Amino acid sequence: MKRIVTKHAIDHQPCAGDFAVVETDMPVCQPEGVLVRVNYLSLDPYIGSVLRGRHMGHAAPKPLIEAPGAALVGEVVESKSDRLQVGDHVLCRKGLWQEVVAVPADGLEKIDREAVPLSAYLGALGSPGLTAWASARHLANVKAGDTVLVDAAAGAVGGTFGQLARAYGAKRIVGVAGGSQKCDLVTSIYGFDACIDYWAEGWEEALRAAVPDGIDVFHENVSTQMTQVALSLANDYVRGVLCGLAGVYHAAERVPQTIDAGTMIFRRAQISGLIVYDFEPRWREFVAEVAPMVSSGQMRCVEDRAEGLESAPAHFEKLMNGANIGKSLVVVAPE
Amino acid sequence: MKRIVTKHAIDHQPCAGDFAVVETDMPVCQPEGVLVRVNYLSLDPYIGSVLRGRHMGHAAPKPLIEAPGAALVGEVVESKSDRLQVGDHVLCRKGLWQEVVAVPADGLEKIDREAVPLSAYLGALGSPGLTAWASARHLANVKAGDTVLVDAAAGAVGGTFGQLARAYGAKRIVGVAGGSQKCDLVTSIYGFDACIDYWAEGWEEALRAAVPDGIDVFHENVSTQMTQVALSLANDYVRGVLCGLAGVYHAAERVPQTIDAGTMIFRRAQISGLIVYDFEPRWREFVAEVAPMVSSGQMRCVEDRAEGLESAPAHFEKLMNGANIGKSLVVVAPE
Repeated sequence: MKRIVTKHAIDHQPCAGDFAVVETDMPVCQPEGVLVRVNYLSLDPYIGSVLRGRHMGHAAPKPLIEAPGAALVGEVVESKSDRLQVGDHVLCRKGLWQEVVAVPADGLEKIDREAVPLSAYLGALGSPGLTAWASARHLANVKAGDTVLVDAAAGAVGGTFGQLARAYGAKRIVGVAGGSQKCDLVTSIYGFDACIDYWAEGWEEALRAAVPDGIDVFHENVSTQMTQVALSLANDYVRGVLCGLAGVYHAAERVPQTIDAGTMIFRRAQISGLIVYDFEPRWREFVAEVAPMVSSGQMRCVEDRAEGLESAPAHFEKLMNGANIGKSLVVVAPE
Repeated sequence: MKRIVTKHAIDHQPCAGDFAVVETDMPVCQPEGVLVRVNYLSLDPYIGSVLRGRHMGHAAPKPLIEAPGAALVGEVVESKSDRLQVGDHVLCRKGLWQEVVAVPADGLEKIDREAVPLSAYLGALGSPGLTAWASARHLANVKAGDTVLVDAAAGAVGGTFGQLARAYGAKRIVGVAGGSQKCDLVTSIYGFDACIDYWAEGWEEALRAAVPDGIDVFHENVSTQMTQVALSLANDYVRGVLCGLAGVYHAAERVPQTIDAGTMIFRRAQISGLIVYDFEPRWREFVAEVAPMVSSGQMRCVEDRAEGLESAPAHFEKLMNGANIGKSLVVVAPE
């Protein structure tokens, strides 16, 4: 089978040339474990930090030896666990960039492939969706009448956040994204009321005009540059969630990412840090709420697919450059 | 009667020389208003910002014409309101540096002078206490087992916060204050487990050693220098409250007061801005809880008193210099 490895230690924004495709033996199914044939491999921005050894609790893969980590969905093809049978489909959060993975059964979520498309479990029903749900429902507590600002609105997290906010009764949902193509997606498919192109001249003024009643909730995973603009437009008691700083993970020079305390006091802001791992124990509760929205079409999912495991390096470079439109994933094997 | 006025517009940290004592006519009681003979005048750090025209919703007093604002407690000596009678004692949040004030009755809180000392209504039962209660009970939600860090612990807000935290079951309560005399007060009278003197060499190491189990809650009203240290020692899900930046209100050069977003995410921090005015409608609920603690001696109050209205300018300069030990107030007339 095929596996992707890094060719060397990485100390820059990862690009396709950092990876190699290698042929390797099939992994061996361990006691209480399963072999999973991968259908879809998830590519996510945080993996860029993992590859550089900068992500909490994740070591960088050993060059030429270990495949990078990734969430994936696939089919059980061998089982030494009572929990799972051959033919079951699973979500594996700790998978690898391989065609087949050998993993412990107890870290896997068995998934229902009839109700929603399998690949949705990497986007709106996977960690990106869980992040959005944790933020919108639990930390920011979006409610009827809120004006909501969502950074990286074309991304899997942001797109799900905005659609959840709509379901929770938000009055006005405004996104921020880079480029007109992403902004079109955000408004036409995800149904935001407006999306501001931060590549465009005068975007701060456009944002101000887009939130005439101020901002009640903001969701940030790019940089505090946007957070500070959001705070400057915020209403009293604004609730903000910080769940990443993807815009600066690979900056050549460290850019301080700070929030002004005086503004926080003046606005009585309530700002929370979010790491999605904390909410993984609540994944089934989340899926019970959001899967019906996906199957009914109320929750729209957009994907940026590449075919074949060997396409993963170039597809990851595209993600790192922010050139993906929708959830980035690799189709490793047809369902 | 006497009144204090500013002699000129103030654009520096206020000092005694900025004020003058003037004789003036008694004010006239207005319809639905009362005249209050002042017993105790409260001196608070935020007044320093008001005097410079920098405090939200408060204009600076007109030099030579208007007295600075202040909370006070006193006795009703004339009433044109059904709500209050001559002889009632009241807390007035919008008083003036005068011996007698004419104020609308409906902004006053009638107070029980039998249960607790009158002057407590300017400290543990006044706005400082309400601030501490809003922070400890409502925003930070101090609970059993917490380790709590309190900046400006010798102040009226900090001292009350620590004692409330004890009542709510906090495991370890650590203060920060400037100078050994304040630190002694914090531990010996307010009952904190430790107090770190930030004037002392190596205070950051001393603080680290004082919180061996990390920090679960912090209360900040001085500067984000301490907030950043608190975050560096914080446990996951740390709850922080920002309710002022008194340490930099009068700094000659603007010192950026910021919080690091990456640390907030890493620690899943929940940080809230607090302005005490929001909690004034809940003052009776607060007094119902805390007054019994004051009358039983469970809640200790320490005061820094000066005698006579004419002592207010020098006493305010002392407060501005942080030289007060305990709640700063002026005894304008004996009870």
